[in-house]
Amino acid sequence: MIIVRSVKWLNFCSVKSTTFVSKTAIVTFKDITLPEIDETLKRASDAFFSFKNLSLAARRDILHSIATGLEAHADDLVATAASETHLGNDRLKGELGRTCFQLRSYADAAAAGHHLEPRIDHAMPDRKPAPRADIRKVMVPLGPVVVFGSSNFPFAYSTAGGDTACALAAGCPVIVKAHPAHAGTSEKVANIVLATPGLPRGAFAHVHGMAFEVGKALVTHPLVKAVGFTGSTSGGRALFDWAASRPDPIPVFSEMGSINPVFLLPERLAVAALDVATQYAASITLGVGQFCTNPGLLVGIRGSGLDAFQSALSAQMAKVPAAPMLHPGIARAYADRRQTALSQSGVDTLASGEGTEGVPTLARTKATEFLSNPVLHAEVFGPYSLLVECSDAKEMLKVALHLEGQLTSTLIATENEFQSNGELVEIIQQRCGRFVWNGVPTGVEVVAAMQHGGPYPATTDSRFTSVGEDGIRRFMRPLCYQNVPDAMLPDALKESNPLGIWRLVDGEWLR
Amino acid sequence: MIIVRSVKWLNFCSVKSTTFVSKTAIVTFKDITLPEIDETLKRASDAFFSFKNLSLAARRDILHSIATGLEAHADDLVATAASETHLGNDRLKGELGRTCFQLRSYADAAAAGHHLEPRIDHAMPDRKPAPRADIRKVMVPLGPVVVFGSSNFPFAYSTAGGDTACALAAGCPVIVKAHPAHAGTSEKVANIVLATPGLPRGAFAHVHGMAFEVGKALVTHPLVKAVGFTGSTSGGRALFDWAASRPDPIPVFSEMGSINPVFLLPERLAVAALDVATQYAASITLGVGQFCTNPGLLVGIRGSGLDAFQSALSAQMAKVPAAPMLHPGIARAYADRRQTALSQSGVDTLASGEGTEGVPTLARTKATEFLSNPVLHAEVFGPYSLLVECSDAKEMLKVALHLEGQLTSTLIATENEFQSNGELVEIIQQRCGRFVWNGVPTGVEVVAAMQHGGPYPATTDSRFTSVGEDGIRRFMRPLCYQNVPDAMLPDALKESNPLGIWRLVDGEWLR
Repeated sequence: MIIVRSVKWLNFCSVKSTTFVSKTAIVTFKDITLPEIDETLKRASDAFFSFKNLSLAARRDILHSIATGLEAHADDLVATAASETHLGNDRLKGELGRTCFQLRSYADAAAAGHHLEPRIDHAMPDRKPAPRADIRKVMVPLGPVVVFGSSNFPFAYSTAGGDTACALAAGCPVIVKAHPAHAGTSEKVANIVLATPGLPRGAFAHVHGMAFEVGKALVTHPLVKAVGFTGSTSGGRALFDWAASRPDPIPVFSEMGSINPVFLLPERLAVAALDVATQYAASITLGVGQFCTNPGLLVGIRGSGLDAFQSALSAQMAKVPAAPMLHPGIARAYADRRQTALSQSGVDTLASGEGTEGVPTLARTKATEFLSNPVLHAEVFGPYSLLVECSDAKEMLKVALHLEGQLTSTLIATENEFQSNGELVEIIQQRCGRFVWNGVPTGVEVVAAMQHGGPYPATTDSRFTSVGEDGIRRFMRPLCYQNVPDAMLPDALKESNPLGIWRLVDGEWLR
Repeated sequence: MIIVRSVKWLNFCSVKSTTFVSKTAIVTFKDITLPEIDETLKRASDAFFSFKNLSLAARRDILHSIATGLEAHADDLVATAASETHLGNDRLKGELGRTCFQLRSYADAAAAGHHLEPRIDHAMPDRKPAPRADIRKVMVPLGPVVVFGSSNFPFAYSTAGGDTACALAAGCPVIVKAHPAHAGTSEKVANIVLATPGLPRGAFAHVHGMAFEVGKALVTHPLVKAVGFTGSTSGGRALFDWAASRPDPIPVFSEMGSINPVFLLPERLAVAALDVATQYAASITLGVGQFCTNPGLLVGIRGSGLDAFQSALSAQMAKVPAAPMLHPGIARAYADRRQTALSQSGVDTLASGEGTEGVPTLARTKATEFLSNPVLHAEVFGPYSLLVECSDAKEMLKVALHLEGQLTSTLIATENEFQSNGELVEIIQQRCGRFVWNGVPTGVEVVAAMQHGGPYPATTDSRFTSVGEDGIRRFMRPLCYQNVPDAMLPDALKESNPLGIWRLVDGEWLR
């Protein structure tokens, strides 16, 4: 794959043409210009008024229609994505299925109205010394949202992916910037979205841009009210910094890196070393390791259980064939970072598959090395994991204390070990968004209780999730109504509850 | 009042001494040093482990005890605050009462557990192609929070005020930086908090600082996880910028400026001009106008109703005596900003009380002037309001469109006018956190449905409130538990619901 670029960003308004030659397909597209960005945002802002006031049912129908549209074009979409990326047909079909499931799941959540979080405190006309007015509150959409397509999920976290679905469910117009690595797929998905019945003109837009200035111009445009991103730490942080330096800062939801530590305790390994190794060989190499929840760090305590686990894991990982990665940029980055990690002092290679791209790799080091070398804390995005050997439980605590924020942390332990390692559990829970017991972190369920997000640098805002219906909240803010007559209240707050949704009324949840 | 300062900040660790001579009292205190900040944060961080794990009932009791302690020392606290500020005894007594009400209200909210927002999605062991694990989520505290005492509320938004109460209710240790204008009051309140039974050592700390470097060192300290602030736009933005530029950015809740526009429609003025004028004369001059919800902008349409309203309002405001403001800094700023506003081209003075400090003032200008002169959009913190005369409803729409983010917006209108001015209502609601119909924006109720916060520059984060129990959420993030045995789940998530709190279980709110 060759990338041909001829991009120049002159005064933010020249016309640029970028040709991105992917695996087999050649897709040529033009970077959007500054005047075009301005025009796109004005249209989105105009569309906001009608889009935000659609009924919950209308919004649900739009999201369902997008899912139906994607399914109707599944063969073409999968073929296009397969021509642009190295993801196989099965993975792409599965991902498209997940994307449709997400769309429908957020559609139904939006119709159920949980994201509106209505609160009603009735008036107290007889209160002394002064009466209390009727006060009600409901979540309202923020306004136009820019979504950056991710490279590793051409469907599920791109054009009609999770961020787009959440923002549309919230009532926000969406401007998607296509990821250049699958711009043709993105364009096709966008056309399906644009053809959705009931979607107001301007409520969805699709733009291209290789130049970083396109991203900057989008994030700093005055009419943009929030940003969604899944990708690298450097990319996500750049968007955050641009947004924070605006005259009016806006929220940025960057889901960035995570090494998803797994803590393996001896009692559990004594009885289940082989089973755990089998689970982890699959989890580490799933999708050539290209998941943000890939377990990149395994922390154990020296002993026979850990020995059995590491030999079984090494043996199994060595059997997993190397495989092409998403695109050459990712393959190169993996090769470089893997090489950097393996060449650190005190690191040895337990397993390394044959091949040149996406080589499954298990490395090992001592806790003392890990604690003193920040290079070993960095994410190596791909089918790679580092096993850190601790001399005892105390050293394992130290390793936990030195970890950065994570999307997930996993504890492999018996119930007895779980109970008797309270401090370790506290420390690892404090550093992650999702805590898993005796399982693998890969596989993120789309449910209300999901938290996909964690303390920095896992994300730029640990208070929100990018998976599950609470992800809709990212693009909303509360609006309070004081002393407003029933007829003029939004349906969600009307006394008779015409939408039949759950509401916190004078301290009780009622429907 | 004279401010004597001899502050030098050498290498962040010299010892400084600041004497702040307030109205009648002389309070001398030392700026905290960098090593002391570090020590304070380490203690807070250590205390976090035990404090976050207190039962809901224990946390409720601590907040109730603080309220009881404040009440037991009410006379001394009010006398101290009266000696440091120009707020009268009645106002201070009232504010102390509100502070205790807030503490108890957040105490009871914390005990009720709404802020935990528990979500439970049960396992689906038979799901195809793969089973679904049990997934649960609950809000957990962020960690140590720095609260900056405000100048205009020595009790309600300072040492044991709303931000502190919310953070403690969330389970976060709090470090209060006293406002220098009432450092003695702050110290006394802090001692009461520190003596609270059940509060772990280190979970609350009180520090002084005149130098801005103290604020910067607190906000950028690695162990600080969030910041609460009420005050000026420049101050609030500086804290936000420091926090955003950290290696790991943290949330800052700065509640800053707002001119709280009031839109007056003719039908309503035709029948109620005098009543509305009486309400507004009181609201504009309440507490010498030193409330963040003070109505600083009145927008009307030229005609007999508006004429009647403005003569009545002018007459009543001219009768309100000028009064000393909180402290000399605020008095000076009010005099300067008032003068600047009144000297703008096309602005005339409708009412101006006698006196030299805190002079009640009503100014008037035409919409064309307002639209073309950003100086007139700036907050004049004090008993000041600007009446903007529009030639028609269309011009009023334009004024609304040109407004920045606001804490509140008010519509004075008949129900008929409310219904027939949909576009105006949309526009003003989009720019505020709380929308009031036929009332005044001053007087912020502490209820679940309250939203005290609005689009920038009203606050740095419109998605959160600083008044009402949802304010507790500012200092929390979700933590998800996957496949965790019941015995090891936090009580809020245990299957039997031992806390008896409301939870979203498989899509239904249950208790």
